Amino acid sequence: MNSFIYNIPTKVYFGENQLGNLAAELAKFGKRVLIAYGGGSIKRIGLYDRVMDELHKAEFEVFELSGIEPNPRIESVREGAKICKEQGVDVVLAIGGGSTLDAAKFMAAGACVDHDPWEFFGANAKPIERALPLVTILTLSATGSEMDSGGVISNLSTGDKLGRLAPALQPRVSFLDPTLTYSVSKYQTACGAADMMSHIIEVYFNTQEDLFMLDTFMEGMLKTIIKYAPIALAEPENYEARANLMWTSSWAINGFINGGKRKAWSCHPMEHELSAIYDITHGLGLAILTPRWMEYCLDETTVDKYVQYGVNVFGIDASLDKMTIAKESIRRTAEFLFDTLGLQRTFTEVGIKREDFEIMAKKACRYGDIKGFKTLTPDDVVRIFEMCE
Amino acid sequence: MNSFIYNIPTKVYFGENQLGNLAAELAKFGKRVLIAYGGGSIKRIGLYDRVMDELHKAEFEVFELSGIEPNPRIESVREGAKICKEQGVDVVLAIGGGSTLDAAKFMAAGACVDHDPWEFFGANAKPIERALPLVTILTLSATGSEMDSGGVISNLSTGDKLGRLAPALQPRVSFLDPTLTYSVSKYQTACGAADMMSHIIEVYFNTQEDLFMLDTFMEGMLKTIIKYAPIALAEPENYEARANLMWTSSWAINGFINGGKRKAWSCHPMEHELSAIYDITHGLGLAILTPRWMEYCLDETTVDKYVQYGVNVFGIDASLDKMTIAKESIRRTAEFLFDTLGLQRTFTEVGIKREDFEIMAKKACRYGDIKGFKTLTPDDVVRIFEMCE
Repeated sequence: MNSFIYNIPTKVYFGENQLGNLAAELAKFGKRVLIAYGGGSIKRIGLYDRVMDELHKAEFEVFELSGIEPNPRIESVREGAKICKEQGVDVVLAIGGGSTLDAAKFMAAGACVDHDPWEFFGANAKPIERALPLVTILTLSATGSEMDSGGVISNLSTGDKLGRLAPALQPRVSFLDPTLTYSVSKYQTACGAADMMSHIIEVYFNTQEDLFMLDTFMEGMLKTIIKYAPIALAEPENYEARANLMWTSSWAINGFINGGKRKAWSCHPMEHELSAIYDITHGLGLAILTPRWMEYCLDETTVDKYVQYGVNVFGIDASLDKMTIAKESIRRTAEFLFDTLGLQRTFTEVGIKREDFEIMAKKACRYGDIKGFKTLTPDDVVRIFEMCE
Repeated sequence: MNSFIYNIPTKVYFGENQLGNLAAELAKFGKRVLIAYGGGSIKRIGLYDRVMDELHKAEFEVFELSGIEPNPRIESVREGAKICKEQGVDVVLAIGGGSTLDAAKFMAAGACVDHDPWEFFGANAKPIERALPLVTILTLSATGSEMDSGGVISNLSTGDKLGRLAPALQPRVSFLDPTLTYSVSKYQTACGAADMMSHIIEVYFNTQEDLFMLDTFMEGMLKTIIKYAPIALAEPENYEARANLMWTSSWAINGFINGGKRKAWSCHPMEHELSAIYDITHGLGLAILTPRWMEYCLDETTVDKYVQYGVNVFGIDASLDKMTIAKESIRRTAEFLFDTLGLQRTFTEVGIKREDFEIMAKKACRYGDIKGFKTLTPDDVVRIFEMCE
């Protein structure tokens, strides 16, 4: 069992009607605020007006950057960092889902350096020593960006979609109001559920033994998603369902469940290559990959983890043969993702073509083989892609 | 479902061989350190020398206060606050279990005010606006004081044992090394397990509906205690068992599992009156009270929570009659506390006398009836005490 450092200082206002605390929290950092958001959805649900009202009452100087893309692009990051520098912004307020929050993190960091923000990424990445303080208002339960110190940015000119972690990127304060996710579409709700499920599975399926207590938490979060995602699909304004999904999204990836595990993630680096080229929704790519990756990694040396998962998460009869339980656990995972959540199940359906498999596999292994639950070479990745066709 | 604020900024170094980071963490706050500890156990296990070695290498100016009692007393708090003021201490380093950590919290707060630290307690308590930074090294898994903002102090001259919560008391950094609990006696290990179990049960048994996800975490922690406490008793140097108990002790009471629940705790206020008069170990008092309180509160309006608990924590057959499951869940709880952990099961065995029931019950309700899972009047408390005889 490895040692670890736990350090998750984000303060969270969880629940309805917490925005009355926004101005006081922002004011701790200064009076000049950059608001970053995506499309028009925050205007449609009235959130934009509520925020602006709070900020104007408290006499903030507000700057705006809208139009941040799903799979956010380096151009938006550059633009935000430029505004921060030119306007002497004190604090960045990101309003949206993971894409907006991720982009805002690198705007906040980019504001503190002279170089291009794309230099924060890749093999020779520049250090991120500080960033402007970041406050977030979450409108989509999925990536966990509201409570972690990482983000993923796409660069269409190089065909790269790269992630980066740094403590300075951790949001200082996040507002999690489940009612702000009532208007999230069925499709995005399903993709969000698949994304958070993947965050847990990437850690849970690990050959490094760690704290049993953390395994029970991961099983609890998986059961929470399996219970509440279908309710949120059927009743978009079910507070209990939206609240459970929202708090699970944060805890699935804020680092807590990792404990001392050091193994790399597997489906995420593969998926980033899909969405780098095809611009598909991250959660959908993960949904297609996950059951195939599980199937690819199953053998006599890994079967015990599938048994634990199958019995504790899906309630499969523990007295059955190990391999039977393992296969049933994969079948149940696929059934949840494709039948219950209604996500597309193959690359063919979403238009991902065989001709790109090799280049995507090579890029997924750009830093070497993926040393995860099972080590994956570029050839392994191609074979998993083939299983997804 | 109530809204809530999540704010747990303590940084934790978890695992073996992390003390190399102690000096760097302390130095963030200054160079004058008060070390607070209890009896000789930290010297016996070599921890005192290791800490002193780290501090001397880094040229700290060290002041010491030893002899902090189990059920720590206000006199120790006064003494520590006085040293801090007189010596211009920058940071308090508490080394020990919950008693030492609790006392150190109020030393750190007492150092910042002119009044007597006992005025932080009771119905007309003075505010705790700030405190010296506190760093802790934990040697006993039980109270969770290493990651929360509360503490309990005894005043023998008034016969009171009172708790207080304030954000300023939250430790900035805590070192959790499971090997430092290897030498904890069987009895103290059992009492610690009972204490953390009670922290979870006090929140779990609640009539306010809250996040399902948090219920799954509580069930996971209860299963962790039930699995690993017996292993720690049988094999005191089992790292896995000690590590699981240690991290569970922190998460059982750092506020996370509360979510938006507002109901009062029940067994803790009752127990504080036992240990205020009889100076018994807190966890032992809780163990005796908990199953009787559960039995006292069981009726048709509360039975569902016992069913959830019995099925999910103890694996009791869900198809049985609700009342049968509930009673079996209480029986299993008592069996774990008294047979598996080997704790004494009655007031008679530990010398608590009927003649004190009324005054203890009245004091447990000093702020009014206990508005917990079921509202308890002083008469209810006396009846629960009678069930413990």
